[in-house]
Amino acid sequence: MNYQQMAEQAKAVRTTIATASTNTKNAALLAIRDAMAGSRSQILKANQKDLETGRNNGLDEALLDRLELNDARIDAMIEGVEQIVALPDPVGEVSRMTRRPSGIEVGLMRQPLGVIGIIYESRPNVTIDAAALCLKSGNACVLRGGSEAFYSNQAIARCIADGLASVGLPEACVQVAPTADREFVGAMIGGDHPMCDVIIPRGGKGLIERISKDATVPVIKHLDGNCHVYVDAESDQQQALQILENAKTHRYGVCNAAESFLIHEALIKTLLPALEAVLKPYAVEVRGCERVCAILPSVSRATEDDWYEEYLGPVVAIKVVSSLDEAIEHINHYGSHHTDAILSTNYGTVRQFMRAVDSSSVIANASTRFADGFEYGLGAEIGISTDRIHARGPVGLEGLTNQKWIVFGEGQVRA
Amino acid sequence: MNYQQMAEQAKAVRTTIATASTNTKNAALLAIRDAMAGSRSQILKANQKDLETGRNNGLDEALLDRLELNDARIDAMIEGVEQIVALPDPVGEVSRMTRRPSGIEVGLMRQPLGVIGIIYESRPNVTIDAAALCLKSGNACVLRGGSEAFYSNQAIARCIADGLASVGLPEACVQVAPTADREFVGAMIGGDHPMCDVIIPRGGKGLIERISKDATVPVIKHLDGNCHVYVDAESDQQQALQILENAKTHRYGVCNAAESFLIHEALIKTLLPALEAVLKPYAVEVRGCERVCAILPSVSRATEDDWYEEYLGPVVAIKVVSSLDEAIEHINHYGSHHTDAILSTNYGTVRQFMRAVDSSSVIANASTRFADGFEYGLGAEIGISTDRIHARGPVGLEGLTNQKWIVFGEGQVRA
Repeated sequence: MNYQQMAEQAKAVRTTIATASTNTKNAALLAIRDAMAGSRSQILKANQKDLETGRNNGLDEALLDRLELNDARIDAMIEGVEQIVALPDPVGEVSRMTRRPSGIEVGLMRQPLGVIGIIYESRPNVTIDAAALCLKSGNACVLRGGSEAFYSNQAIARCIADGLASVGLPEACVQVAPTADREFVGAMIGGDHPMCDVIIPRGGKGLIERISKDATVPVIKHLDGNCHVYVDAESDQQQALQILENAKTHRYGVCNAAESFLIHEALIKTLLPALEAVLKPYAVEVRGCERVCAILPSVSRATEDDWYEEYLGPVVAIKVVSSLDEAIEHINHYGSHHTDAILSTNYGTVRQFMRAVDSSSVIANASTRFADGFEYGLGAEIGISTDRIHARGPVGLEGLTNQKWIVFGEGQVRA
Repeated sequence: MNYQQMAEQAKAVRTTIATASTNTKNAALLAIRDAMAGSRSQILKANQKDLETGRNNGLDEALLDRLELNDARIDAMIEGVEQIVALPDPVGEVSRMTRRPSGIEVGLMRQPLGVIGIIYESRPNVTIDAAALCLKSGNACVLRGGSEAFYSNQAIARCIADGLASVGLPEACVQVAPTADREFVGAMIGGDHPMCDVIIPRGGKGLIERISKDATVPVIKHLDGNCHVYVDAESDQQQALQILENAKTHRYGVCNAAESFLIHEALIKTLLPALEAVLKPYAVEVRGCERVCAILPSVSRATEDDWYEEYLGPVVAIKVVSSLDEAIEHINHYGSHHTDAILSTNYGTVRQFMRAVDSSSVIANASTRFADGFEYGLGAEIGISTDRIHARGPVGLEGLTNQKWIVFGEGQVRA
């Protein structure tokens, strides 16, 4: 099948999946789960083939680990599908219905986006997660995983197709790239008739920048996570130390880990040495502004680039600020509009921070690590958006929908 | 001032205007109104200069008419500003606040998009309308009107700057292109540091396609308005004739005018001749499918292209369909996802149409002409979006905002 046919098939099933009842979609998900459970050995065999190819091609151990499937990981994929079955269906929600002077009634109805293209890297579990989220939200999808996971993804694709067919839904509701060819990505995101209505790239910054640059359809994406914690003059210092420790050291490689701390100048003599002691066991490297270095002599000076940096590792930049406004200005200027937190006991200070910080998550008195679809109650997330339009922050089922206007009349015409 | 400085200025005032109180923003709008009222003669003089240049450059009469300002048009601009003052401020609305198992409280807060770039054509009134909508919704903006309206726009820009300054808001909240240079558009929408966070192009399809192609920031846009009215087998034929007449002939050049009628086959012998009689006084040209031509011999055959066409004139394409499903399929395939209507007295038929038609406005038993920000109660609109993400349909103040997640804790860390 060529790409043009795949594009036509995706568009042809858009209405079918968009109008499928929640019961039908859930039945399809459970059938897919059963097909996965019944195909364990085929999935593991396909995965072995990918792993061997990967080893022969010299993939590093971290990549091979992400690529590897085993019984526990297949169980986790199955459990993920069950969790999505349990989530409420966002499609069809009607809101803001009002009667207008002309007598028409106007409101908004939530509905799927259309054909969603998801482009991702080595983890094969994304294939089933993404398919389940798109299905539940009434979207058709085209999935293109990493070439290193090609056979694993094909095996999972067969389970999805079997599940869909068993409840009478068209298999084209979920199309998995039948080739590891790079050209396929081009057909998904651009050209005269892009296969997809919306693209969600998941992976490293390089992938996301490349996709965003080339796509002619809208892209829902997450770039940097340069997250800040600001410790206000009026704050509980013990609590602050716990939150700073958690935000920086709980996991280094995640987008909601803190990369910079902003410390109010009133606290520098007490908080900075205590913070140094807290970070010491983790061997976190501190890069500080001039005032930090004056208090902590072993700290190296941060450069201008440090304030922009997403370290994704055991490094933190610390800056002393002399006011709330300076903290807000720093965050809005150097930050990546992902997740930023304030630690303060002052009512007005917290309110001003929440209003003024222009990030997809703004947090008072808790760790930045809470910026997550599960912690927010979305049940599952397809990613985190740092875009300014459409969904911001963790994107769950609702982020895969839009709202159309619906109008009910009794024969009204415009005068 | 160079473009880079303008970009920095826009970003520098983002937080100020985003956090300005509704009272301050309304005071600025009223001061701008007063400045407009006090500068009538200067605005009219600047407009005369544009009109003379336009005549010398051989602009056609329609364009000159759009360009021309007079006392009545200045009154209308002033009234438009007052209407925006009267609208509720969308910024700061908090919704869906829930307490999560971890004890954090999570919700959504509505806030401005950032720096909005608006690129438009000859009408100078867009300068003040767009500025007022962006200000009220807490956004900074960069406005670039048509080169033919350059002096008119500069005169209006001075009123806006005076109004902002008089209430202590930075003039850079609204920046009007200081040059008619095309390069300026490039600096707004792309390059290494685009001036704007989001672009809204308003104008002809050529302009919008060009902007969308070149922009590296998100574009909120409206392309075609190929709107349909489907007349179901079960429908009130007198009412249908009135709505079809209104949807096609009320105004031809607007995006929510109907371009195609889909008629259920049960009605063709009665409705088609009656419809021909209704359209006759308007000299609307009918292009029909084979079955329409069989009933109405004077009608010419529609080609495949006709089903895609937005005529924006006294032409209509009519197709006979044998079922609701065929109508839905036709609309979702050939339509532009703008506005589509069903005329039916059957409960289930209407419900299915509302669910399945993937358009920014889906209307039952009223004219497509109602798809409009004022008719929907938005109070004002900056445009109509036919995109699939962010706002769909008429975009008012709320469409110029997004929602960020806000989290309140009492020292929580991730376990």
